[in-house]
Amino acid sequence: MTDTLSHIDATMDDRLARLFDFLRIPSVSTDPAFAPEVARAADWLAQTLKDMGAEAKVHATTGHPMVVGHLDGPETAPHVLFYGHYDVQPADPLDLWNTDPFEPVLVPVEGDTHIVGRGASDDKGALMTFVEACRALIDTKGSLPIRVSFLFEGEEESGSRSLPGFLEKAADELACDVVLVCDTDMWDRDTPAVTTMLRGLVGQQMTIKSGDRDLHSGMFGNAAANALAVMSDVLASLRTDDGGVSIDGFYDGVRDLPAATAAEWAALPFDEEGFLTNVGLSVPAGEAGKPVLHQVWARPSCEIHGIWGGYTEPGFKTVIPCEAHAKLSFRLVAGQDPEAIRAAFQSHVQARLPADCSVSFSDHGLSPAWAMDAENPFLAPTLAALADEWGVSTTCGTGGSIPFIGGGAG
Amino acid sequence: MTDTLSHIDATMDDRLARLFDFLRIPSVSTDPAFAPEVARAADWLAQTLKDMGAEAKVHATTGHPMVVGHLDGPETAPHVLFYGHYDVQPADPLDLWNTDPFEPVLVPVEGDTHIVGRGASDDKGALMTFVEACRALIDTKGSLPIRVSFLFEGEEESGSRSLPGFLEKAADELACDVVLVCDTDMWDRDTPAVTTMLRGLVGQQMTIKSGDRDLHSGMFGNAAANALAVMSDVLASLRTDDGGVSIDGFYDGVRDLPAATAAEWAALPFDEEGFLTNVGLSVPAGEAGKPVLHQVWARPSCEIHGIWGGYTEPGFKTVIPCEAHAKLSFRLVAGQDPEAIRAAFQSHVQARLPADCSVSFSDHGLSPAWAMDAENPFLAPTLAALADEWGVSTTCGTGGSIPFIGGGAG
Repeated sequence: MTDTLSHIDATMDDRLARLFDFLRIPSVSTDPAFAPEVARAADWLAQTLKDMGAEAKVHATTGHPMVVGHLDGPETAPHVLFYGHYDVQPADPLDLWNTDPFEPVLVPVEGDTHIVGRGASDDKGALMTFVEACRALIDTKGSLPIRVSFLFEGEEESGSRSLPGFLEKAADELACDVVLVCDTDMWDRDTPAVTTMLRGLVGQQMTIKSGDRDLHSGMFGNAAANALAVMSDVLASLRTDDGGVSIDGFYDGVRDLPAATAAEWAALPFDEEGFLTNVGLSVPAGEAGKPVLHQVWARPSCEIHGIWGGYTEPGFKTVIPCEAHAKLSFRLVAGQDPEAIRAAFQSHVQARLPADCSVSFSDHGLSPAWAMDAENPFLAPTLAALADEWGVSTTCGTGGSIPFIGGGAG
Repeated sequence: MTDTLSHIDATMDDRLARLFDFLRIPSVSTDPAFAPEVARAADWLAQTLKDMGAEAKVHATTGHPMVVGHLDGPETAPHVLFYGHYDVQPADPLDLWNTDPFEPVLVPVEGDTHIVGRGASDDKGALMTFVEACRALIDTKGSLPIRVSFLFEGEEESGSRSLPGFLEKAADELACDVVLVCDTDMWDRDTPAVTTMLRGLVGQQMTIKSGDRDLHSGMFGNAAANALAVMSDVLASLRTDDGGVSIDGFYDGVRDLPAATAAEWAALPFDEEGFLTNVGLSVPAGEAGKPVLHQVWARPSCEIHGIWGGYTEPGFKTVIPCEAHAKLSFRLVAGQDPEAIRAAFQSHVQARLPADCSVSFSDHGLSPAWAMDAENPFLAPTLAALADEWGVSTTCGTGGSIPFIGGGAG
């Protein structure tokens, strides 16, 4: 591999330039205003694969397009499917950025150099690492030692709605021996990790209405139901005093972490205090007594992502608003049924509405949690190969959700 | 008065045209973007007073200007001060209007004709009724039978911050025998009323912060404090299960309604059910067991006017927001100390913040409640004069606040 690695070092500027071109495309999938940019990112990616000799195509879906590519290798070698996503989260609130989120820059940090820009790590940077690795092997060896397929989607940050249907339709084309998801983390900058556990997600939006118009609190204050007050009551009712989730049946099917896994995690050099103090926090906010790693990897959660309603402009208006809105989600762990969680949440809300109030729901992403079988035949060789290069490797969990895993590939 | 009343009928189109000119000025006092329009409304009003022969002037303040005018009358007649306000509430949400709020129109309603436009009733229409009455008397009699001063402010809808200072400075110029506030209601369209009770107001805005940045719920969900969840908990904690306010000491000084007043109100032809069903409600939301008129006139309230924070755009974003904002107010009754209520509210919030969270407050309007002495010498003659013209009259309360009353004139 020496020649390949030297070639990568020698051509790093070109490789960074390609990544920066990619990062400059504001492919925010959740906001319809950015749809043309999402499409442009898909086209850019397919062209990039073609430029390195792959067969590649942009497939239209009911949502954002899928990019699929293939590179040949020896018939007898394993067939690997690389999965990643080319869409990104919205960049707001923009005033918390020091630079334009879609004009990436190199920033020196503690003797290292960081790429700062929306999507630099999640997931354009990670995705391009694999693409550029294939390119370097082809440049120096002429071909790959394995068969490789690529599947890059544009809806990972907004629920992967088109994914299940596409995977079903493209099942033959995407058949492979193993899927490698390049949308997870290293344990730390010195320790590569194989993620064996992913949380699922139920995304939910709701609107609570009280009466049929906004009222003046001077005339109706006290006597009229206030949609924002009802929303506050309903949202406050979702958590127990000790940091758990209070919805009936929410923990049905949730199992305690296996002792072996708990021991492996306890052995990781994890700075629980630093994890929180780095972001201005000090006390784990979730279930009392659970270690932070258990809270974020192995316990389900309920988080409120947005609330709005009433008068929110400068100044003051003594309105009793008749509409209140919220976005929230539940992270799930293995054993929880996403559809049952959504239904239990909706029943919980309905049961707490006072007279004269109603609620309507709109559903966002839904994906079950996933946990890898400890006997998976690719796991031990992967951990060994990583340890061979880095001196160390580990398995880990992750608190995020990758709809591709739960919703399609299983 | 026959000639004056006939003259008014004959010149009604001109009078409406003046009111419509006034209504077209979007004098929204709470939003700094409208400040030039607020100033334009003040100038328009001063010119209108001058056009009818009054001495009139626009007085600059630290906020929006005051319009003061005088019309002479016999030395021995009472000196009446008319108070009103030329500012209006914001017109949003705009999608709940059928017509442009600042392009007034006449709309036939149940055999009557309504003026529809922002400020048509609160308070430009009411204010112009008095101004036009003075104009008609001058047109037909040459002068007024009483001495009249006018005080029109431009901050009534945003807390009347400049008012106390101005009243102190202009005390000599505004000295009078009686103040007539033209910012209250008739009991119904057939029954004129003298309002003898006004609620006070404490307006408050707050921002809750958790940690120092927005986080991703995939990485931190469960472990990080969520500012919106804390805001929901805090707001939900303000009310008791039976519809009261749970803040320590909130009801200190609040007295039961005198039996005579309760009896007078009970005798009013008030359709409690219709009051609510007209706006899509059916059950009084305040203190259990209290009649609606008591809830809106004689009991203090807590209302949430606006909440915002996190991701509120189309689509979905699994952010744990580090900032949450709310606007709310308390309506007060006689006996409550506004400063003490503000302090008690802030202590209530501080005491409920979990680890890693902080709150900052910004204060909006503050005015005590007011109740008229039943022995006021102008009350009985006023009620008698009204009954003489209309066949009936009554005293009543009102749930709104007029900072001019509590904050300045006492």
